[in-house]
Amino acid sequence: MNRRDFSLRLAGAVGALSLGGLPPAAAHARGRPQRPSVMVDGDRINRHLMELAEFGRNPYGGVSRVAYTEFDRQGREYVMGLMREAGLEVSIDVAGNIIGKRAGSSPALSPILFGSHIDSVPDGGNYDGDVGVLSSIEVARTLRARGHVTRHPIEVIVFQNEEGGTIGSRAFVGHLPDKDLDLVARSGKTLRDGIRFLGGDPSRLSTLHWKTGDYTAYVELHIEQGGTLDAERLDIGVVEGIVGIGWWDVTIDGFGNHAGTTPMDKRRDALLAAAKYVQMVNRVVTAEPGRQVGTVGKIQAFPGAPNVIPGQVQTTLEIRDLDKSKIVRLAQQVMDEARKIGAENGTTFTFRETYLSEPAMMNPAVQKVIEASATSLGLSTKYLPSGAGHDAQYMAQIMPTGMIFCPSVGGISHSPKEFTKPQDVVNGANVLLQTVLALDAK
Amino acid sequence: MNRRDFSLRLAGAVGALSLGGLPPAAAHARGRPQRPSVMVDGDRINRHLMELAEFGRNPYGGVSRVAYTEFDRQGREYVMGLMREAGLEVSIDVAGNIIGKRAGSSPALSPILFGSHIDSVPDGGNYDGDVGVLSSIEVARTLRARGHVTRHPIEVIVFQNEEGGTIGSRAFVGHLPDKDLDLVARSGKTLRDGIRFLGGDPSRLSTLHWKTGDYTAYVELHIEQGGTLDAERLDIGVVEGIVGIGWWDVTIDGFGNHAGTTPMDKRRDALLAAAKYVQMVNRVVTAEPGRQVGTVGKIQAFPGAPNVIPGQVQTTLEIRDLDKSKIVRLAQQVMDEARKIGAENGTTFTFRETYLSEPAMMNPAVQKVIEASATSLGLSTKYLPSGAGHDAQYMAQIMPTGMIFCPSVGGISHSPKEFTKPQDVVNGANVLLQTVLALDAK
Repeated sequence: MNRRDFSLRLAGAVGALSLGGLPPAAAHARGRPQRPSVMVDGDRINRHLMELAEFGRNPYGGVSRVAYTEFDRQGREYVMGLMREAGLEVSIDVAGNIIGKRAGSSPALSPILFGSHIDSVPDGGNYDGDVGVLSSIEVARTLRARGHVTRHPIEVIVFQNEEGGTIGSRAFVGHLPDKDLDLVARSGKTLRDGIRFLGGDPSRLSTLHWKTGDYTAYVELHIEQGGTLDAERLDIGVVEGIVGIGWWDVTIDGFGNHAGTTPMDKRRDALLAAAKYVQMVNRVVTAEPGRQVGTVGKIQAFPGAPNVIPGQVQTTLEIRDLDKSKIVRLAQQVMDEARKIGAENGTTFTFRETYLSEPAMMNPAVQKVIEASATSLGLSTKYLPSGAGHDAQYMAQIMPTGMIFCPSVGGISHSPKEFTKPQDVVNGANVLLQTVLALDAK
Repeated sequence: MNRRDFSLRLAGAVGALSLGGLPPAAAHARGRPQRPSVMVDGDRINRHLMELAEFGRNPYGGVSRVAYTEFDRQGREYVMGLMREAGLEVSIDVAGNIIGKRAGSSPALSPILFGSHIDSVPDGGNYDGDVGVLSSIEVARTLRARGHVTRHPIEVIVFQNEEGGTIGSRAFVGHLPDKDLDLVARSGKTLRDGIRFLGGDPSRLSTLHWKTGDYTAYVELHIEQGGTLDAERLDIGVVEGIVGIGWWDVTIDGFGNHAGTTPMDKRRDALLAAAKYVQMVNRVVTAEPGRQVGTVGKIQAFPGAPNVIPGQVQTTLEIRDLDKSKIVRLAQQVMDEARKIGAENGTTFTFRETYLSEPAMMNPAVQKVIEASATSLGLSTKYLPSGAGHDAQYMAQIMPTGMIFCPSVGGISHSPKEFTKPQDVVNGANVLLQTVLALDAK
């Protein structure tokens, strides 16, 4: 099924979200939305969040549950237990992703996939990834508790090593080349050893290559890492897409010289040029309307002594936007302006592109389903881009994909301070439940 | 003898520089300067420069004759051989400095000291230090060859480890505290072990504490590391003083955050503040007339990833000037302006002074002697500060001190590209010779 077909088919489902729980037939009643009666057990999700937080817990708060570590393995064991309690048939694919399956009533239909990840960055928090995984399991458990059998098979997925480069989701769609398996992950293990450690089989990765048509849709609930929902006191974010990312290594060459003996007007100071560059990037990126962001995150001056005029500076450029052509255009503008800075103080700029990812647009029909689901629950919504990468960006390559954001206080993530209010977690889970049901209702 | 006395006594000597070689009485002939007849052997100095260059020679040019290494030891052996050939009585003081002595005709007079250093930075050149040492030995050799006995004893000194913090000259005037002996030098040896390696006795350093009155004067010939003489095609620099140096460690605290999800207007980017800081330092330092210099030579952003907004930047500030109050005032201005930058983008600046050295003024009478010596040789001169530190700055604490600069092409130093034309070396050596004779003539 290509995306266009899916969009057309979904169009009928939108507005039919007041499925009102069981029996499923009720989901098809048209007219003014009424509050759905099937809801997740909010206390249970939040309890599970606290329980999962034990694996890799740090004394100062948060967790370090880095992929391929013992804490990661323990967390996965815990989650697999929850999946079994939810009546899911649990397996680990060759890439090490955990999948919990439940059959649907129409064997010809391809599954609806939903989930997220439970690995964390070092010194991370308890919501990034976890909220999506535990809510997905809760959705499956709720459906089972209510005796509701979906038409499509459902599959809850826990992608492995999202934080270390969306490894599990890349493998899922066949985008993890064999040569990458020798890369060393944060755990110290290579990806190959890590996959083996999780129960996967790296030698059979090529057999895992899901394609368009294999799945009906993918939905991921995740905390919003940008703080927009929290700042604007909104309940649910409907993700329009995951931004593309461009990275450049930037080298600025001047002339290193003695800081004591070289008069100010005789200098070709690479750091002075770098200072102008950093400000210029900020100016170029903010000069036009839009939600593009541009960042200089890394800088080093050489030789790097207080008493030597820097002869070289190595720095970076990152630009993100939902529109790849905008990324490329802004980068070009930065390069042009950099050339002028160089000409002014006798330095030269060299840009080397190191990464340029495609923006991943979320499926418009799934976006509408998510919005309608939230509205049916009385929740406020906002359409927004995801500035961070997610497993969903790879799912979007082979199936209609949607992401649901719930607020993160202050937009803080990758930090022990990461926090999503219990009610916001529950809201997100209920929107996920209604979205799955609406997608299933077709 | 205090400096004032010395200045008065020297006043009579200025203008008497056409001493015209031997017999010494001729030096006292007054009237229009005539070209001195006693001159160094220029070919010999330049040949010695090339010979010394062999010890620590790098395949790509220049030398790495780092203090306390085997190459340093070999270079010192070579130089001690030259000293003996020049008729000097060679010894190594407890600090590891090499001293070559020759008695004067008036035993009551305190010695005239001249010299420099032969250690280099890693990947250094063949002129910084070497020119002064080899010219000093040549001056002694010339006097001996001409049978000229000075009134004052003369002492040629090779200070050890100038490049690693003017260690030998500091020890010479009692400014090397015992605790510093455990510092590790570039060679990997501690200063204590390095001094022992050179034949000194670190346990007896306290016995080496020359005081005001012990010496008549110190004169050092050195290449000019600033390029002013070369740019203005001048022969000789008369050094007015060695600048004071202030160093500050600067920490800028912002808020580290996800570069993808944090909108541009919600950032407290420490590197953006640092960029403004670097430009501001340049602006403040160049805003007023004078030869002060200000440099930001070191910078690092934390966490330092292309996709994270820097939460902290660690950088530096260095200001140099002949006037210490100007250094302090400019630093205060930088701190005030930094506070404004911080207030604008939600970051805070912290400055920590790590070093503040006193400017070392050269003795005005010695300066005049140097100028007159150069003029008598038909050489053009310019009064200028030394932006770099030299052993002379410690000598200036206990005796009237002067420095003679000869041009370095392009002002390049601490580099294999360091080069002083043979004739400029010879000019410097002849000015040193005439200066020593004039000082001796009182």
